[in-house]
Amino acid sequence: MNNFELYVPTKLVFGEGEIKKLTDLVPKGKKVLMLYGGGSIKKNGVYDQVTEALSSHKVVEFSGIEANPQYQTLLKALEIIKNENIGFLLAVGGGSVIDGTKFLSSAVLYEGDTPWDILANRIRTYEGLPFGTVLTLPATGSEMNSGAVVSRKETQEKLTMGGPGLFPQFSICDPTVIRSLPQRQLANGVADAYTHVMEQYMTYPANAFLQDRISEGILQTLIEVAPKVLTDPNDYVAASNFMWSCTMALNSYIQKGVPTDWSVHMIAHELTAHYGIDHARTLAIILPSAYTKKFDQKKEKLAQYAERVFNIQTGTVEEKAKVAIQKTEEFFHSLGIKTKLSDYTDNYQGFGDTVAENLKAHGMVKLGEHRDITPEVAAEIVEMAY
Amino acid sequence: MNNFELYVPTKLVFGEGEIKKLTDLVPKGKKVLMLYGGGSIKKNGVYDQVTEALSSHKVVEFSGIEANPQYQTLLKALEIIKNENIGFLLAVGGGSVIDGTKFLSSAVLYEGDTPWDILANRIRTYEGLPFGTVLTLPATGSEMNSGAVVSRKETQEKLTMGGPGLFPQFSICDPTVIRSLPQRQLANGVADAYTHVMEQYMTYPANAFLQDRISEGILQTLIEVAPKVLTDPNDYVAASNFMWSCTMALNSYIQKGVPTDWSVHMIAHELTAHYGIDHARTLAIILPSAYTKKFDQKKEKLAQYAERVFNIQTGTVEEKAKVAIQKTEEFFHSLGIKTKLSDYTDNYQGFGDTVAENLKAHGMVKLGEHRDITPEVAAEIVEMAY
Repeated sequence: MNNFELYVPTKLVFGEGEIKKLTDLVPKGKKVLMLYGGGSIKKNGVYDQVTEALSSHKVVEFSGIEANPQYQTLLKALEIIKNENIGFLLAVGGGSVIDGTKFLSSAVLYEGDTPWDILANRIRTYEGLPFGTVLTLPATGSEMNSGAVVSRKETQEKLTMGGPGLFPQFSICDPTVIRSLPQRQLANGVADAYTHVMEQYMTYPANAFLQDRISEGILQTLIEVAPKVLTDPNDYVAASNFMWSCTMALNSYIQKGVPTDWSVHMIAHELTAHYGIDHARTLAIILPSAYTKKFDQKKEKLAQYAERVFNIQTGTVEEKAKVAIQKTEEFFHSLGIKTKLSDYTDNYQGFGDTVAENLKAHGMVKLGEHRDITPEVAAEIVEMAY
Repeated sequence: MNNFELYVPTKLVFGEGEIKKLTDLVPKGKKVLMLYGGGSIKKNGVYDQVTEALSSHKVVEFSGIEANPQYQTLLKALEIIKNENIGFLLAVGGGSVIDGTKFLSSAVLYEGDTPWDILANRIRTYEGLPFGTVLTLPATGSEMNSGAVVSRKETQEKLTMGGPGLFPQFSICDPTVIRSLPQRQLANGVADAYTHVMEQYMTYPANAFLQDRISEGILQTLIEVAPKVLTDPNDYVAASNFMWSCTMALNSYIQKGVPTDWSVHMIAHELTAHYGIDHARTLAIILPSAYTKKFDQKKEKLAQYAERVFNIQTGTVEEKAKVAIQKTEEFFHSLGIKTKLSDYTDNYQGFGDTVAENLKAHGMVKLGEHRDITPEVAAEIVEMAY
C-alpha cells in the first residue's frame, strides 16, 4: 500500500425527501446563485422543492449549463456572480452542472489573466467560493470530490481541474430523482460509475487488500442493481444503492494508497470533444481495447476481478483475465451501450492519429499507471476500438 | 436503505514516515498540549519523531492517560489546559489517549457545573478545542470519528460521548508503530475492529447492498491479515491493511443508512468497568452469546455473512447462521482470545444481575437494533457467556 492523504470534508445528505434541508444548509445572509441545466428540474419537481426550501433566501438563477459544461457558458455565469455580489453557489443538476459550479467557485477568486488558465495551466484551487449541490443524476461522483472537467467548443478541448478548495460544502442526494431520467442517462450513469472504479482498481496488485475489496463491492453492487435501475427507476432499493455506489466510486476512498490508471478517461475525453459522444459511452468504447493493449501489465488484477466479481474460478490467470474483459464489455452491452467507435460514427478513419496529436497538444504524453501510454500507444488503443 | 447524513472532515495522513508532517499540520502560534499514555512512545521512537517535528512549536506534555481513560486523570490535564492557555491538543497514543483528548476538547469549552455532565447527561459537543492525533495502536477507530468513551473508577462507570465538534483535525497513521506492540495488544486491536464492523453489519437485511459489501470487505481483510500481524508485525503489507481496516471499521461509512446494534459494546463495557478485562476481550466474550440469544432476528444476516465471508455455500439459513457464530468464535480463538467470562474470573456468579442493574442505572434499558434487549435480556446474555 502506498502512503496517502485522505480528506473528504463534504457533508453528504442522502435519502428521499432531504432536499428540504436546504433551508438550513444554505447560509442565510449571503446572496445565492442557483445554477442548473436545460430545465429538466422544472419538470421533475426538484426546482419546486429547491425554491420552496430557499423561499427566505436571496436567490438569483442561472440556467443553461449544458452536458460537458462549456467555458463560454460559464463565463456568463461568472459575470453574474461578480455583478450581483454572489456569496454562495448552489448547483442543482448532474456532474456537468456541478463541475461548472466548481469552475466558477475557483474562477471568481482567480487573479490571473484569464480563468481558462486554471484549466490550461493546471492551476490547483486551494480556496474557492463556497458552494453546495443538489444531485439530480447519479454518475460522476462530482458531488463528493474536488475535481471538475470543463470543455471549450472552439478549440475542441476538454480539460480537468481540481484542488482542496473545491469540495462542495454539502451535497443532497435524493435517489428518487432518477425516476424521471431517460433510460439513456441511467445507463450512462451506471457505466460512468463502473468505469470510475475500474480506473482506480484495474492496475496491478499493490497490496491494498481493503481498497480492492471496496472497489469490488461497488462493482458487484452496480452489477446487481443495474437491471432494476433500467427497468424500474421507481425501485427505491435499486435507486439508492445505485446513487450511493456512484458517490463512493469517486469520493477518494478507493483511490488512496493504490496506483491509478485514468488513461481510459483521458483518451475517451477526446471522443467527446471531437464527436460529441456521451462521456460514459466513450469510456465503454475505450476501456476494452485499453485493457487488451495493456493485457500483460493488468492480467493479474484482471484475473482477481474475474474471480471475485464474476465468480470465474477456473482457468489460468490469462484465461480468467480475458474472460474479465469480455464480461465487462457484456456488462456495457447489457446497459444498451455499444462499445465500438464505428457504432457511433462512420467518420472514424485516422481518428487515432487525431487523438495522438491532441494528447500531445495537452501535454498528456505519459498516461496509465506505468506512465507508458504515449500518444502513439493511445492511437493504437483508439484504432483497436474502431 | 435508511436516509443518512455523512460528515467525516478529519484529514487522514497514512503511511510509514509520515509523523514528520506534524511540523506543518500542527498550527504554529498556539501552545500545544501533547498527551500520551504510560510512556511506551519513549521506547518505540514515536516520542522522538513527534518532538523533533514540533521542535519549533511551544509544547507542554501530559503523560499517564491509562487504558480506559479515567475521568480523575483527565481532570488534571484539564487544569493544565486552562492554566497554560493551551490552544491545540495533540494525542499521541491509542484509542484511550485519543478518547481522553476528545473529552478534554469538549470539557475545556463546557460551561456547565461539572464536565462529568457531558457523559452522564449525554451532552453532544458541537464545538471543541482543536486537536490532532498520532495513532500508535490500531484498534478503536477513534482517529477518524467523533466519539469517545471515558471511565470513572470510583463509580465503576464507563460512558460514551460525542458530537460533530469532536473530529480530529488530522490523524497520522504510520503502520510501523505496530512493530513494538505486544501480541496481546495486536490481538485486541484485531478483535476490536472486527467487532466494530459486526455491530454495524450484523442486524437484519436492510437493502443497503454497498454498505454490506464494504463491511464484508473489512472483515475479510482482517481475517486475511490477522495471522501475519500476530506472527510478524514487521510485515508492512499486513500492518498497513490492518491499520486501514481498523480506521474504516469505525469512521462512519459502514454505519450510514443501516440499522446498528451496539448492544455487544454496551453490555461488554460493564465487564471492563467491573473486572478490568481488556475491552476487546469483553467484546469477544459477549458477541457469541448475544448473537445466539438474538438468533431469530439475526439469522438472515448471519447466513449472508457465512456465505460471503466464510464461503459457506451449503445448508439452510439456520445452519449457515449457526456456523457463522461458530466461525466468529473460532476467529477470536485464533487470536488467542478466550470467549467465556469464566476464562477470566472465578467470581462471575450473579454478575448477570449486576449488569442488569448497572444498565438500568445508566438508562440503557433498550439495547440492540430492535431496542428489545432489556436489562433482563442483557443479564441472560451475560449468563450465557459464563
